Amino acid sequence: MGQAMGAARRYLPVLDWGRRYDGKALQSDLVAAVIVTIMLIPQSLAYALLAGLPPEAGLYASILPIILYAMFGTSRALAVGPVAVVSLLTASAVGQVAAQGTADYVAAALTLALLSGGFLLAMGFLRLGFLANFLSHPVIAGFITASGILIAVSQIRHILGIEAEGHTLPELLLSLAAHLGGVNLATLVVGVAATGFLFWVRSGLKPALRRLGMPAGAAEIAARAGPVAAVAVTTLAVWALELSEAGVAVVGEVPQGLPPLTLPPLAPELIRQLAVPAILISIIGFVESVSVAQTLAAKKRQRIDPDQELIGLGAANLGAAFTGGYPVTGGFARSVVNFDAGAETPAAGAFTAIGLAIASLTLTPLVFFLPKATLAATIIVAVLSLVDFSILGRTWRYSRADFAAVAATILLTLGLGVEIGVASGVALSVLLHLYKTSRPHVAEVGLVPGTQHFRNIRRHRVETRPEVVTLRVDESLYFVNAGFLQDLVQARVAEDRAIRHVVLMMSAVNEIDFSALESLEAINRRLADQRITLHLSEVKGPVMDRLQTTHFLEQLTGRVFLAQYDAWTALAARAET
Amino acid sequence: MGQAMGAARRYLPVLDWGRRYDGKALQSDLVAAVIVTIMLIPQSLAYALLAGLPPEAGLYASILPIILYAMFGTSRALAVGPVAVVSLLTASAVGQVAAQGTADYVAAALTLALLSGGFLLAMGFLRLGFLANFLSHPVIAGFITASGILIAVSQIRHILGIEAEGHTLPELLLSLAAHLGGVNLATLVVGVAATGFLFWVRSGLKPALRRLGMPAGAAEIAARAGPVAAVAVTTLAVWALELSEAGVAVVGEVPQGLPPLTLPPLAPELIRQLAVPAILISIIGFVESVSVAQTLAAKKRQRIDPDQELIGLGAANLGAAFTGGYPVTGGFARSVVNFDAGAETPAAGAFTAIGLAIASLTLTPLVFFLPKATLAATIIVAVLSLVDFSILGRTWRYSRADFAAVAATILLTLGLGVEIGVASGVALSVLLHLYKTSRPHVAEVGLVPGTQHFRNIRRHRVETRPEVVTLRVDESLYFVNAGFLQDLVQARVAEDRAIRHVVLMMSAVNEIDFSALESLEAINRRLADQRITLHLSEVKGPVMDRLQTTHFLEQLTGRVFLAQYDAWTALAARAET
Repeated sequence: MGQAMGAARRYLPVLDWGRRYDGKALQSDLVAAVIVTIMLIPQSLAYALLAGLPPEAGLYASILPIILYAMFGTSRALAVGPVAVVSLLTASAVGQVAAQGTADYVAAALTLALLSGGFLLAMGFLRLGFLANFLSHPVIAGFITASGILIAVSQIRHILGIEAEGHTLPELLLSLAAHLGGVNLATLVVGVAATGFLFWVRSGLKPALRRLGMPAGAAEIAARAGPVAAVAVTTLAVWALELSEAGVAVVGEVPQGLPPLTLPPLAPELIRQLAVPAILISIIGFVESVSVAQTLAAKKRQRIDPDQELIGLGAANLGAAFTGGYPVTGGFARSVVNFDAGAETPAAGAFTAIGLAIASLTLTPLVFFLPKATLAATIIVAVLSLVDFSILGRTWRYSRADFAAVAATILLTLGLGVEIGVASGVALSVLLHLYKTSRPHVAEVGLVPGTQHFRNIRRHRVETRPEVVTLRVDESLYFVNAGFLQDLVQARVAEDRAIRHVVLMMSAVNEIDFSALESLEAINRRLADQRITLHLSEVKGPVMDRLQTTHFLEQLTGRVFLAQYDAWTALAARAET
Repeated sequence: MGQAMGAARRYLPVLDWGRRYDGKALQSDLVAAVIVTIMLIPQSLAYALLAGLPPEAGLYASILPIILYAMFGTSRALAVGPVAVVSLLTASAVGQVAAQGTADYVAAALTLALLSGGFLLAMGFLRLGFLANFLSHPVIAGFITASGILIAVSQIRHILGIEAEGHTLPELLLSLAAHLGGVNLATLVVGVAATGFLFWVRSGLKPALRRLGMPAGAAEIAARAGPVAAVAVTTLAVWALELSEAGVAVVGEVPQGLPPLTLPPLAPELIRQLAVPAILISIIGFVESVSVAQTLAAKKRQRIDPDQELIGLGAANLGAAFTGGYPVTGGFARSVVNFDAGAETPAAGAFTAIGLAIASLTLTPLVFFLPKATLAATIIVAVLSLVDFSILGRTWRYSRADFAAVAATILLTLGLGVEIGVASGVALSVLLHLYKTSRPHVAEVGLVPGTQHFRNIRRHRVETRPEVVTLRVDESLYFVNAGFLQDLVQARVAEDRAIRHVVLMMSAVNEIDFSALESLEAINRRLADQRITLHLSEVKGPVMDRLQTTHFLEQLTGRVFLAQYDAWTALAARAET
């Protein structure tokens, strides 16, 4: 019984914070929910546009998913819903199986959310949250920057009122150039005005409000409301001036009502095509979400559990799949607003969901004349803040290997698309790591006179003996560097026929895998062929335990010395007798 | 001038040993060449059969390639030519682009050799020999064992005189079962007799000859001549008893003459299809060849240069491509025979080539009645010695991760074919390595009373202070474990509100990559949000040099202490004032 409660509380964090919920928390959560709801209405419509979906899909993807995350997630402030990068990945994946504007496209987005949710849940139950660590920070940074550029460029067509498509930067630019003759002037005016206004709100409004004496938090929240103002003003302008007659594309009819119950199609061929993108979306969404959640949790000395986060996000995506949405994750901007506005518990998310449900029940007729150019402007301004090329300079100064991974990720994402870009970045960062550890530092050491210490013979004046070579290995031994050690020992003894003993000093070796064990056996055998004895010294306890399960220690021609100094005195004594 | 000679000698080792060649070396090399030639004639024909090629392709692949390797290779004893695993890989790759028995099939094998040679040469000039280390020993062992089984099973059809095909064990077994009704009795008698004889030669003849007083080396060589006897006897039997009338398949007409000059076709589509198999064949052939060459070189305190080996093997494969052969590499059995027979220099290889050239000029009419069943028997007996399931037991006892890699490689090679098998094995061994380093050992340490040493608080009685946590990190920090450290620090401070200082003891950290740097920045920032100061101690010189190129040390809320004991005394003093 107690155990069942423990398991229930682990998988349902709501049981934990729900019991302690009080009036004060309720008040904080309600205030935060109102602010976030106002911000989310235009953002949800805009990201649906970016994903190539009808605008209501963005609203629907913000309602049930938020509630499910509030029940299963561990972050107190994370706000779940459509985000820019995941919307782009959705457009790229679904665009390969169906044409935008068709019912198949909308249905495939549901399947993508279902697969993504299932994958996240499976990872969560298998406690595989650590897998997110296999994405290196520079690769993520490069990917986010390149995606921001792709997203911004993909929205230019809405600002210009033309058609253009493509999933890579060259495709998008060529397509824009080809259609440039068809620019719609009215759209251009609305789009440029909205973009300019939003840039000013972001960079100029907040300082202006601060100068007028508004507190920092309130000024920040007011600035976040900029998109709502842009939406209101441009919608009114289009309606009053009948700009849609002049060719300004508008959102049009959005169904009025609560999210529908939807069943994602599950044709095997569709699943096969969407499986890899779903995994990619899951992992990227999870990494982004967890890093936001951890940053916010740390500010209040709270903890989040990455494995339970997988379950929270998985449930949210299943919710999106069955209520007309598309893949969702924890968003940076919305979560920060939620946190700054004072959200105390996940109930703030639930209240936001209620706010959005009311909006989709009542407000949708008001967005009929909302120009797509305004939505595009909010996307462009939001994603350009993600673009940060400083990662190139910072990694260049710090490590060329990390720089290579960033540069490749950015170039390949822009040039070949988001999926190839991020996959290549991950593969390259793994290969570079293997390369770095494939040639470990190995120092030939000698005795520092008057001590029992052994130091590198190239850096210190030390004692050596012509018939003894002592090599200190500064890395765990495993298959990638096992052959290197073998070559290195062979090279050292081939050039010097006085050598009778080789001592491998293992103080820095935390692990010896099976390949390295076989290399040690080969080193031992080959040295024996040359009448040279192999010894080990300072082998760590766990490494020694494992070696004792093998025949290596019996075959070893020399001894295993506890301390390197013991090896030195024993071999010196042997030479003198 | 001197530099040019140096470069010439580096890329043409023949200039080095050729100058010192004398009568004694000539005599040893000639004896070895005669023995190896006799062994190679049936072997070359058999491996051509395994590769699905006409028998003469095996002879041709042994002539110019041997001479080119003698000029460019660095091993004194390596014998280059067709080998079992590469022949199987060739059959698998070429079988996907052309049907066996067609001219296209023979031509595609030339292209495969050309691509493989080009790839090996490119790797050699770029000095990428170390890449072979990315294959772990257990993966190679599992792959060789599974390949041996596939090869043996693929030859059963020749013993039974039926048709059967497939690239995986289930395919082969089902195909054999389906054709079992068509077994040819005469073929079965010849095949079973030859197989039984060859097994006896291998296991019974050598001990028998030893008992009769023959030296070990000579008995070994006599046993190696078993296939020649089997070939002679069964060929005579087929001719005398007219068994080919009774349905025994024979080698038939083999063109008489020197290897022809051939031009590998270079259609872009063909190159695209064969590129990946060519890379796989190159790497597997290179790994096998280098390990044989290193084993033999070590016995005489000689060295081989892996990068120059790439050039030697690359040249040999180009030679095969232009003279009617197929991909080649250094073979284990033939090299050991060459070495045991006393070969002193690569000239022994050149003499072997001359012997095989004479054979292909004069002896080919004699093999007209050679039964394919006999060749299949020599293959089966040869490859079953490669099959060694003990690797499963040895890795199981030593390390479950290595066991998983072997088991997956064997199962996938047998079940899905050689290419998927080896690729999965490599991917899995890399993933398992990343997994192992993703959760590094981190010990919370305290002061051993009366000393300046710090030890794990769980294993030793040590002094600690409630406001100070000292964590010793026992692994280099890089993207795979950067997040783990972040979580671990957060978990430790979240549970204990007395903590004011966190000290990371970096004595075992050999590297901090950019992701880990960002994690340290995040740890510093998040601890600061909780009013906890972060300090470092015992940072290694090269790691510190790199940290100094960043702003991290300025942002660090605490200090960097040279020794952990300095950190201890400074923080103790701070608490007491």
